[in-house]
Order: sequence, then structure tokens, then C-alpha cells
Amino acid sequence: MTGRVVPAGGLERFALNSATTKHWPLPDLVAGCVEAGVTQVGLWREDLVAPGPTGAASLLRDAGLTVTSLCRGGFFTTPDWYDDNRRAIEEAATIGAPELVLVSGGLPPGSRDLDGTRDRITEAIGRLVPDALAAGVRLAIEPLHPMFASDRCAVSTLGQALDMAELFPVAAVGVVVDTYHVWWDPDVWRQIARAADRIACFQLADWITPLPAGVLLGRGLPGTGCVDMARFVRAVDAAGYTGPVEVEVFHEEVWARPGAEVLAEAVEGYRAAMAG
Amino acid sequence: MTGRVVPAGGLERFALNSATTKHWPLPDLVAGCVEAGVTQVGLWREDLVAPGPTGAASLLRDAGLTVTSLCRGGFFTTPDWYDDNRRAIEEAATIGAPELVLVSGGLPPGSRDLDGTRDRITEAIGRLVPDALAAGVRLAIEPLHPMFASDRCAVSTLGQALDMAELFPVAAVGVVVDTYHVWWDPDVWRQIARAADRIACFQLADWITPLPAGVLLGRGLPGTGCVDMARFVRAVDAAGYTGPVEVEVFHEEVWARPGAEVLAEAVEGYRAAMAG
Repeated sequence: MTGRVVPAGGLERFALNSATTKHWPLPDLVAGCVEAGVTQVGLWREDLVAPGPTGAASLLRDAGLTVTSLCRGGFFTTPDWYDDNRRAIEEAATIGAPELVLVSGGLPPGSRDLDGTRDRITEAIGRLVPDALAAGVRLAIEPLHPMFASDRCAVSTLGQALDMAELFPVAAVGVVVDTYHVWWDPDVWRQIARAADRIACFQLADWITPLPAGVLLGRGLPGTGCVDMARFVRAVDAAGYTGPVEVEVFHEEVWARPGAEVLAEAVEGYRAAMAG
Repeated sequence: MTGRVVPAGGLERFALNSATTKHWPLPDLVAGCVEAGVTQVGLWREDLVAPGPTGAASLLRDAGLTVTSLCRGGFFTTPDWYDDNRRAIEEAATIGAPELVLVSGGLPPGSRDLDGTRDRITEAIGRLVPDALAAGVRLAIEPLHPMFASDRCAVSTLGQALDMAELFPVAAVGVVVDTYHVWWDPDVWRQIARAADRIACFQLADWITPLPAGVLLGRGLPGTGCVDMARFVRAVDAAGYTGPVEVEVFHEEVWARPGAEVLAEAVEGYRAAMAG
């Protein structure tokens, strides 16, 4: 496979995030995307382990695929956060990902100091800014749903992510708008308008209930839940965002199905959101 | 048992919410509270079914117990919401509960219209205001954690609850501050200060992980999780709140234990929060 595949009509902004098809090995995912006329993928660092970042870059380039984002840096409460995040920035640069998604991590063990934790996250991001600028990779702060505040991400709203991002140059720090995490927020429409060129990554996943134990793997493919996807597309577009629209879903039942089938449904959900 | 029991030192503001000891029948709960020097309880409508509201009122009065709140009205998307909420107001008046907690309900089946749902909730509360004023019972809007937004409560933040409450007289509509639901909110301290005399009910429950499937029954007794309870006590006190401090926990493991034992731990958590 060489050369750039012309996308099927209307897929110009679609990107498959590899977490949606977690058990699809990278070479198969790449072939499947080419087959479906998909030209953009969001990747995770796990995807880069087997081929190595350089090998992954060749694989993607040869197939004409571009990388929209790399997940993830962050987890700033772990002891080796600085070195690990610098490696993540390098990996993003190597595969040509313009955005590195940051999931901040939650409270340190035994802590009840949420404000202090949030301050330390901001400081940590500030320390990474020079590395990000040097590498030409933007740090994309992702607010996660408040149900993850204690154990996964102390950044809980888009407004809060923007308060952090705006301390730094727009070329260095942006934010992620993931419908799954922010759909409930009465302030989200105002914050999306405020975000404007800080929107580094836009992801679709749907809210479905009941939530499973641990709540991490409860996301639905776009269109299967109660989120008004089309309204989010209109909102980010109105804010001036013209970048990719990634589908990123975590769900055991989705993961158990063939990658190509899931990709087709992700495309279908994307098309419905874009048409709405 | 007749006459008012003098509370043990420092328990003047403590209230046991009966959901914490779900399987303790009301007569046993009443006796257990008297035994422990507890003089205030928050009740649920289920507690009133066996004795009837008038019978429950007698039982409580004879034991010298006062009722801090009744849970719950709300669920405004169900067909009979108006009649059911009027009955709830009557029941609250009968047992002497000054506050009726409202859990609004989530999206109607198949709906993705969160804004519209929130507007209808506000309208429904407005329709109940005359009944509440006539009965001398305040409607207490409870914001629930955003993980319940779709299926249980579309009111997701304290700020949003206050936006609704402030449309009506302070004697008619207040808000609930439940640490479990609002602890993650970066704006909560400002909103508590704003709430002032709208604070109709203050409840303690702790955030513990991992969350169980369905996420309803994942709350910890105060002190067992990561919420800074003492900071919440200081915040509501600084806002001018002088009312009861209820412990309200939902957890299968807590429910499986003897009521008196759970009550003792609830008191212990309350004391730690008040001392902090």
C-alpha cells in the first residue's frame, strides 16, 4: 500500500481512535482504514510498542494515513511523570501527531487535597511547555467526566481545562472536547465558544446506562446513547474548529467485535453527527 | 419513650438519614437514635408506608425526634409527577419535615434534549411552589453527581440548582448540598457562598472507588473516602447555614450491617467533620 487514498465522500474529517478497536493490531487497523477510505487515525502509545514509533510512522506513511492525536501523557502524580511525558512528546513528534492528549491523573494516594492536586497539574503542564514547543507537539488537556475525578483525572470540566490552558501559549497547550465527558455540563456551550483555537482534539462517544462496575468501559458508539452529537459538531464548528472528528469508544462488547465492523458503525455515527 | 432526649455533647446538629440504615425498620431506628442520643432524622417516603404518615409522626414525637428532611419528591418526567409531588408535600407537612428533597429525574425515554428537560424541571417546580408555601414545606432541589444526569437527575451542579431556586421565593425553594454529589466541582465553594439561606439541607457522604455497576450504591461513610468533609462544614457555616448535618450513605455493605453499628460510625464521621 503506497500513496494517499482518496477518502469516500464526507469522510474528510473522520478519524478512528484506535481505542475503539482495541484488539485490532496496528497493521490490521491501518489496512482496514485504507479499505474503508479512512485517512486519519488517533493512536495510543500502546499501539507504538510492537512496531516502535519509527516503524509505526513508516507503516502509517506508506498507507497514506495521518495521525490526529496521540493518547496519552499526563498522570502527573506518578513519580516518573516528567520523563514519561517527555518520551510521550517525542513519540508524538515521531509519528507526526500534532496533539498529545493529557489525562492528568487523580488524587495522590490518601490525599483529599483536590485544589492542591489541580495546582500541581498546572505546574506540571508548565514544565512540559518548552519540550512541547520544541517538538512542535501541542499538549491537549482533556477534562474527564467528574466520576473520574479521584482516580483518573482531576480536571473535570472544559472551563477548568481552559483556565489551565490559557496560562500558556496557544501553540503549546490546547484542550480536548470529548462529548462523553462534557455532555452533562450546563456551561459546556459557553466554554466551547470560549475554547476557539484551543480546541486541539474533538472526540465523539455516547453516554449509555447502566454504567458498568469501575465505569471506565461504559461508552457507546455515537448514536447509541443520549448525547446530542450534532449539537456538539455545530458548536465546535461555530467556535472555528475545522480539525478532525475522532470516534473514541471504550466498551468490552465493542472491543469483542471485528474491527472492520466497528469501524463501519463508527463512520455511520460520524456521518449522522455531521449531517444533524 | 417520652420526652426529648438531651443529645450527647456535640451531636446537636447531627441527623441520621434513614437511607444509611436502609434495612432498619422505623421503630428500631427511632429507638436506636434515642439510645445513641441522636435527636434528628432525615426520612424517606418508604419509611412512612408501614406506619402511615400520621403514625410515623406520633412515633417520632413520642420519642422526642425531629425530622430534618423528607426524601423525595421530583422525577418530573413521570406522568403522575404533579399528584405524586403534592402527596409528598403533604407527607412532609404531616411528619413535620421542613424540607422536601427533590431529585428531578433524568431525560425522558429516547430524549437527547437535556436543556429542554432542565427547563421542564424548572416549570414543574414552579407549579409546586404554591402547594409548598401553603404547607410550610420548602422544596429542596438536589443536584446529583453528573454521572446520574441521564437517568436520575438532570440537575448536575449546585450552580444550576441555584439558578433554578432563585426564580422562586426563598421560603419556597432551596437547595441540597450533598458532599458526594458536588465534591469534584471546582466552582462549588463559590456556589456554597452564593447559596446562603437557600441551603435547605446539608448531607455528608464520602467518595470511594471503584464505583459499583449502576453507580448508585457506591457511597462511603464520612471519613472513608477522599472528600474533605471538614472544608464543606466550614463552607456551609461561613455561608450562614446553622441547620442539621445529615449523614446519608447508600452502600450494600453498609446496609448489611447492624443499624446501631452504622449509626455509631456515622456519628464518628460527623464528629471528625465538625472538628476539622
